Amino acid sequence: MRPIKHLFGIADLDREQIEYLVNLGDSFIEINRRPLKKAPTLRGKTIINLFFENSTRTRTSFELAGKRLSADVINISASTSATKKGETLLDTGQTLAAMQPHVLVIRHSLAGTCEFLADYLPNTSLVNAGDGAHEHPTQILTDLLTLKQAWGNPQGKVITMVGDIAHSRVARSHLLAAKKLGYSMRIVAPKTLLPSQIERYGCEVYHDFDAALPGSDAVYMLRVQTERLTDNCAFPSIREYHEAYGLNAKRLRAAGPDCIVMHPGPMNRGVEIATDVADSAKSHILEQVEHGVAIRMAVLAALCGGQAEEKKKTGSKREQSDEAMQAQRTLL
Amino acid sequence: MRPIKHLFGIADLDREQIEYLVNLGDSFIEINRRPLKKAPTLRGKTIINLFFENSTRTRTSFELAGKRLSADVINISASTSATKKGETLLDTGQTLAAMQPHVLVIRHSLAGTCEFLADYLPNTSLVNAGDGAHEHPTQILTDLLTLKQAWGNPQGKVITMVGDIAHSRVARSHLLAAKKLGYSMRIVAPKTLLPSQIERYGCEVYHDFDAALPGSDAVYMLRVQTERLTDNCAFPSIREYHEAYGLNAKRLRAAGPDCIVMHPGPMNRGVEIATDVADSAKSHILEQVEHGVAIRMAVLAALCGGQAEEKKKTGSKREQSDEAMQAQRTLL
Amino acid sequence: MRPIKHLFGIADLDREQIEYLVNLGDSFIEINRRPLKKAPTLRGKTIINLFFENSTRTRTSFELAGKRLSADVINISASTSATKKGETLLDTGQTLAAMQPHVLVIRHSLAGTCEFLADYLPNTSLVNAGDGAHEHPTQILTDLLTLKQAWGNPQGKVITMVGDIAHSRVARSHLLAAKKLGYSMRIVAPKTLLPSQIERYGCEVYHDFDAALPGSDAVYMLRVQTERLTDNCAFPSIREYHEAYGLNAKRLRAAGPDCIVMHPGPMNRGVEIATDVADSAKSHILEQVEHGVAIRMAVLAALCGGQAEEKKKTGSKREQSDEAMQAQRTLL
Repeated sequence: MRPIKHLFGIADLDREQIEYLVNLGDSFIEINRRPLKKAPTLRGKTIINLFFENSTRTRTSFELAGKRLSADVINISASTSATKKGETLLDTGQTLAAMQPHVLVIRHSLAGTCEFLADYLPNTSLVNAGDGAHEHPTQILTDLLTLKQAWGNPQGKVITMVGDIAHSRVARSHLLAAKKLGYSMRIVAPKTLLPSQIERYGCEVYHDFDAALPGSDAVYMLRVQTERLTDNCAFPSIREYHEAYGLNAKRLRAAGPDCIVMHPGPMNRGVEIATDVADSAKSHILEQVEHGVAIRMAVLAALCGGQAEEKKKTGSKREQSDEAMQAQRTLL
Repeated sequence: MRPIKHLFGIADLDREQIEYLVNLGDSFIEINRRPLKKAPTLRGKTIINLFFENSTRTRTSFELAGKRLSADVINISASTSATKKGETLLDTGQTLAAMQPHVLVIRHSLAGTCEFLADYLPNTSLVNAGDGAHEHPTQILTDLLTLKQAWGNPQGKVITMVGDIAHSRVARSHLLAAKKLGYSMRIVAPKTLLPSQIERYGCEVYHDFDAALPGSDAVYMLRVQTERLTDNCAFPSIREYHEAYGLNAKRLRAAGPDCIVMHPGPMNRGVEIATDVADSAKSHILEQVEHGVAIRMAVLAALCGGQAEEKKKTGSKREQSDEAMQAQRTLL
Repeated sequence: MRPIKHLFGIADLDREQIEYLVNLGDSFIEINRRPLKKAPTLRGKTIINLFFENSTRTRTSFELAGKRLSADVINISASTSATKKGETLLDTGQTLAAMQPHVLVIRHSLAGTCEFLADYLPNTSLVNAGDGAHEHPTQILTDLLTLKQAWGNPQGKVITMVGDIAHSRVARSHLLAAKKLGYSMRIVAPKTLLPSQIERYGCEVYHDFDAALPGSDAVYMLRVQTERLTDNCAFPSIREYHEAYGLNAKRLRAAGPDCIVMHPGPMNRGVEIATDVADSAKSHILEQVEHGVAIRMAVLAALCGGQAEEKKKTGSKREQSDEAMQAQRTLL
């Protein structure tokens, strides 16, 4: 497998790397179950969370992931950072890299922030925690782990994704992952919330939610910012949007008995998803949150892994054939 | 003793549980004395401080308490949280619980936040770090530890509490504790700062501070927000409030030679308390701060305690009869 | 050597203490090189970063320094602190000290904040992380470590410092250090950005940058707040300031082939420094950032050092003559 130095997006990973990270995440789920344990995998490593946009959920997930692997985690929020004083993004990146963290986790509104910085920071691994409407790779890896738990293998399955596709990095990253892993995507949105040239991703596009439901293995609802609806989308009210594109119990029944429900959070109950659906047994939304910590542990471990001092301790038992378990042992 | 899973308020604790936590806090004071040591009690445990209102003092106290017991502590402030994006309180709680912390410490402006969440978060212990004007149990346990150090036993003592009783969770929690532990409360406030039906707590109510002083064993001053005074309370100025309800040296003398001074902080010097009184030998205000860390260590340890892996290490020496010391050893 | 209890400013350190801290910082550089290690020096110690002004760079540097030495680090920013609720600086300081941290690192807009607090906090070591236009000692120690790496000994060297001298604690602290360590300072600024009586520091003052360049061993550019230029300084635009007082490639050549470039950050590229100069091989700006962590480790270690339990472990091998290495071993 090609080694993984940075995690920019799903676009840069091949199938083998994606499956490696999902399997490694799978093997970390256990650590997060009670009684909770800490693993010494990243002892002595430093992770900096550099968030130019607020995202408590993603930041907390990375912070927990780092700490459960015994790393030191430092949080920096843009609202207090030197960018306010006119420092360039590159100078901020180089300054933090000079302090010698192992991993810099970055959330930024601009697409390609991590790729841009990586050219200048040769000794630091970069993780994209969401860059504008571009990519959000740890969310998609999280979803793939949830799908693995639900289905085993996503190949041949149909995910129906509904909502504000145009502004969604989750949508874009899933469309890229679908091609690599062999599942198919149905995209459902009003025209005003679709990006141009969506068809080039090889997905089916629907404007009628009900038409897309039969045969769906998962319905993946995206958060819709209510401002966008009334300003740009010609919906007279949130109620009309919910009627046309919200997931309710009736629609979920139409999708078939085994169809599961997903959402990257935070949810707008009553807008894109009805409360009884969000809380139903078919909802895997809280599992997604739980798996998010395991995947971020896997990403941090993979990026920091391979150091000589880590490997030494565990050279003995390698009889297991499962690649992920072996990978984890190498890291632990 | 009934096991303690959550700490919602003094209302939910019986006398035995209150005394257990105060004695356990007492046994932790030593760890916080120089040379400071860390205890391994909560190694591998995760505490999330979820503060919907700012309180540096309380948040720092919980953070220090967790870290001195070797827990990982993660801080989340509401100003950056998903509630801004329209997420419900319950979704925020369920999302964080899905990340598998052992304890969620919550400060919120709404009474009953922790009780409400507890029904939905079966695997997480909840600690109320202040919920509106309802309860603030760790502050009262802190005060009881301070009183224990000063008096031994609070039974039969008289605490005179002065200030904005109507908006004070500290007042409410103390009135509940007084009944359970057998001390009495004198409440001193102008009518505009008294809640309705204050008498049902079984306290004496005074509008004249000077009349309440003789026979007081402690004078407990509450912080008064100066906006409230001039807007609602018919005090032409802060000076008039200080004259009527401020604690000065003359009043302290009137209370008798052994009367001590308490305040939950932060103080408004010159408003509810004169500077020479705040800094006098009779003031136990800084002790309250110090004991606050010890009590929060006790609460976190009690809520996380009883895990099999913790107990194993310490099964041998149990000859001491002191319940708290034994409790601590079990936890350490 | 006189023991170092607090770090208020360069004014309070003698030459021996400065050299001790710089040498100790030098010995810590290695820990921050890959593979990164953590040292157990400050295990069980608590550092509180109390920042009344935002400074992500300095706060992160102290946080990393503490964590790389295994301390617990707690961050408090003034925007969420009790000062907003009317608490005095002294009460905030005493409250935090009552929670028993070993070191309180303070950034404040008022000169002398640490000296003021030290009288009231007998058990806590205080570190000035920048107090108004007064002092910024860890920045100067950082610079001295960078100069040590570049030159060996700063004695007899010439540092030409350019920019907003009037508002710069870095300038003031360097002028004090220059006298103690025997290097000389050339100060370059328009009259509107010079403090009164600058001459009493024994430096040369220039209003013409080009005249100051020949013979300079280092050019040290200070950040200029662009508001100050157009409001008070009679520069019609930033461009005019850059022409008169910005460091460009031509000026750097005029300074001689061995002259190095320094800047405390964050930089305003195109204002006080041209981009090609900032990124040139002569720039030591990122080294300053890296050395900042090592110096802060040294300061924290020196202030927490000397505890009996730390010394015991390392009493044996003391054959090395290098004072700093020995100092570090004593601490480790």
